Amino acid sequence: MSRPEQRSLHFNLFIHDTGHHEASWRLPESEPLAHIDVAYHQRLARIAEDAKFDSLFLADSPALWGDPGRRPSGRLEPTVLLTALAVSTSRIGLIATASTSYNEPYNLARRFASLDHVSGGRAGWNIVTTAGDAAARNFGLEGQPTHAERYDRAAEFIEVSTKLWDSWEDDAVVADKDRGVHAEADRVHRFGHVGRHFRVDGPLNVPRSPQAHPLLVQAGSSEDGKDFAARYAEAVFTAQPTLEEGQAFYADVKRRAVAAGRDPEGVKILPGIVPVIGDTEAEARELDAELDRLIQPEYAKLQLATLLGLDPDRFALDEELPSDLPEEDEIEGSKSRYTLIVQLARRERLTVRQLIGRLGGGRGHRTFTGTPVQVADTIQHWFEHGAADGFNIMPAVLPSGLEVFVQRVVPILQERGLFRTEYTGRTLREHYGLPRPANRFASTLVGA
Amino acid sequence: MSRPEQRSLHFNLFIHDTGHHEASWRLPESEPLAHIDVAYHQRLARIAEDAKFDSLFLADSPALWGDPGRRPSGRLEPTVLLTALAVSTSRIGLIATASTSYNEPYNLARRFASLDHVSGGRAGWNIVTTAGDAAARNFGLEGQPTHAERYDRAAEFIEVSTKLWDSWEDDAVVADKDRGVHAEADRVHRFGHVGRHFRVDGPLNVPRSPQAHPLLVQAGSSEDGKDFAARYAEAVFTAQPTLEEGQAFYADVKRRAVAAGRDPEGVKILPGIVPVIGDTEAEARELDAELDRLIQPEYAKLQLATLLGLDPDRFALDEELPSDLPEEDEIEGSKSRYTLIVQLARRERLTVRQLIGRLGGGRGHRTFTGTPVQVADTIQHWFEHGAADGFNIMPAVLPSGLEVFVQRVVPILQERGLFRTEYTGRTLREHYGLPRPANRFASTLVGA
Repeated sequence: MSRPEQRSLHFNLFIHDTGHHEASWRLPESEPLAHIDVAYHQRLARIAEDAKFDSLFLADSPALWGDPGRRPSGRLEPTVLLTALAVSTSRIGLIATASTSYNEPYNLARRFASLDHVSGGRAGWNIVTTAGDAAARNFGLEGQPTHAERYDRAAEFIEVSTKLWDSWEDDAVVADKDRGVHAEADRVHRFGHVGRHFRVDGPLNVPRSPQAHPLLVQAGSSEDGKDFAARYAEAVFTAQPTLEEGQAFYADVKRRAVAAGRDPEGVKILPGIVPVIGDTEAEARELDAELDRLIQPEYAKLQLATLLGLDPDRFALDEELPSDLPEEDEIEGSKSRYTLIVQLARRERLTVRQLIGRLGGGRGHRTFTGTPVQVADTIQHWFEHGAADGFNIMPAVLPSGLEVFVQRVVPILQERGLFRTEYTGRTLREHYGLPRPANRFASTLVGA
Repeated sequence: MSRPEQRSLHFNLFIHDTGHHEASWRLPESEPLAHIDVAYHQRLARIAEDAKFDSLFLADSPALWGDPGRRPSGRLEPTVLLTALAVSTSRIGLIATASTSYNEPYNLARRFASLDHVSGGRAGWNIVTTAGDAAARNFGLEGQPTHAERYDRAAEFIEVSTKLWDSWEDDAVVADKDRGVHAEADRVHRFGHVGRHFRVDGPLNVPRSPQAHPLLVQAGSSEDGKDFAARYAEAVFTAQPTLEEGQAFYADVKRRAVAAGRDPEGVKILPGIVPVIGDTEAEARELDAELDRLIQPEYAKLQLATLLGLDPDRFALDEELPSDLPEEDEIEGSKSRYTLIVQLARRERLTVRQLIGRLGGGRGHRTFTGTPVQVADTIQHWFEHGAADGFNIMPAVLPSGLEVFVQRVVPILQERGLFRTEYTGRTLREHYGLPRPANRFASTLVGA
């Protein structure tokens, strides 16, 4: 084993309704209104916390995504839902997706600081620029800004947000009843940011939170996305269909982080995996096939067209993708997902129907199918061969797929010393072994 | 008694840190970090819920308000904090203030719909246009938009929000596993709003919530504010220093509601009161005076200047307000608060120091000082003489001022048959006796 001393796996639960498989809601076991049910999400959070997961995570877009006819759609806003989960858990980290294109930094920085207070230091922000025209058209625009423009705004958004989180020094609040001084006014900073996209005076109207900044997470894997991750992200969610591609991505992002002057250990790489677990390998494969049979191919074809930003009339279910698709650099949507799907289809020469089956489970994420030991072996292999610091766990069916994973795979990894058996930290940053950020405005080296 | 059959009082708890008195945080009993402590707010919510209050409420502005040196400042964002309270209560309504000037309708409508789902139908929105340049300068502007411009945006904001909440029909979600149809797509509406301030395609990405729309609350009492209330508000918070002014305001808003084609019973008027309760009247007055002695007058002078939007150098502590102050229609901030404070000072010929003492307790709201029976009598008198449908309870000190009120005043009102002894409804709208809104997009009279 080449594993360095003390390096250990990180697990994030990616909650998505009744599961990541498009058809999971149609199974007899699935609750039809799970996606808008707080109690359901509390149950999932407790299962993940009992298994000592680092965090759980919710995706998001400020638009109705996909076809509401086909699968559950419309869900609770992530900072609201995660606050409800913060109150009903005590250790697990809580990561909300939020868009830099369709929020204002003051409002969003404030909500994350509030969630960090409410949760006692367990807030994380998955930073997205939000591809697609549907969201743009809910915010006064005709269509989405260009990919480059969205990333330019995102960078300034992060700069303003971190200034807001630093605008209260750690020791600003003194609450001195005798003197009648609640905060030392010279430790609360109006910074007066003026940039290309934002003008924000500050200070934030929330005192500094337990983690100082929420954990910053990122999931775009385009060139712009990887550069952004290298500069800002502390954890990266990514879809890597093979070990080799995972290794290349891992090395690439760590290298870019070093080039940006950062410690490569300060960026945790978490590929998404769909674990499909059976007592035997054959049973696992049958579980997978059963779900694919529930997919409605005509609906799924529309969804695929939306995902690729292409005309659905250009696809036929039992043929391969058209050969004259645009290149990644002509796409203004999610570039890395586009390329990943097109490459998968071409490499395996899949028909559209077959491609839909593959995407139904993981939308390009890797499926780890097999017995508990086989799945644990694959996890260990990726972890020890430079493809992952941990994994974004995306069960095809929830809660059952999570339950099987935590009952049968996690104990194997714990026995092998690869995953914690108790929490050692209190905050999300502590779970991932990441530092609490210093304050750029701190005026004194020695506290008052 | 002239009280009509079945009319009964409504109580809202206005939570403000350790109390509405500026100096409350300096009392020995007060927790210095209460304002950012979820457990503290949960405790207050439970006290109010045990007393069968209709609702609780949080004020808000997207800027650091006032001087952080002088009193607790910076607090948790209301939709986040109320979500935490939703999970730890089961009946009490939860009203968050949010600005129409510094939010986008899609984001805000979505958070209220989410809170309404999480709370099982207990969300309310106190609609504010946010006076002051400090907030504007956190959102790309040099200074605040004009009063008229803010109200114009607010009206369109409400129009867009209600369209978003109506964009899912009540029976849109069918979750038919056999057919593989989750929602009937023709009952989810992309409405394509295009107006002066907003372009929003819809639909919302949250299915219709238990109350359909959150309860709409409003608190501006300027001419624009009263017209806005008459058109949209279902409850109105207001500062009325005397019974006569309260009666005039009550009649005025109800009349405007009728002129706008609404049932006057559909707008509940809730004056804010600061109850100061002692075993004897003298003891109550002493409690009041004790707090005023804790105020720091020089800090308070700055706060008053900010509140009035005037230069602090124009005030002297032991003189009356300058005689050449601008008229209400020259003010672009909170017009009604400006006029209320200036009139109070002029009517009672208060020095700035005396005015600060009066505002320290209630910022222009009426103080009901006396024994429990005296306070109950005054409440009943206002309620039965056309000045109130209920009250916005603003204890000078929290939690003790709330505890005294619910232990000593509420039982008297319950015995008199004026206030509920058990909740009869489940939702905030049911507590206030207000209807669930119909859906403007509903295509069928008979459900599927």
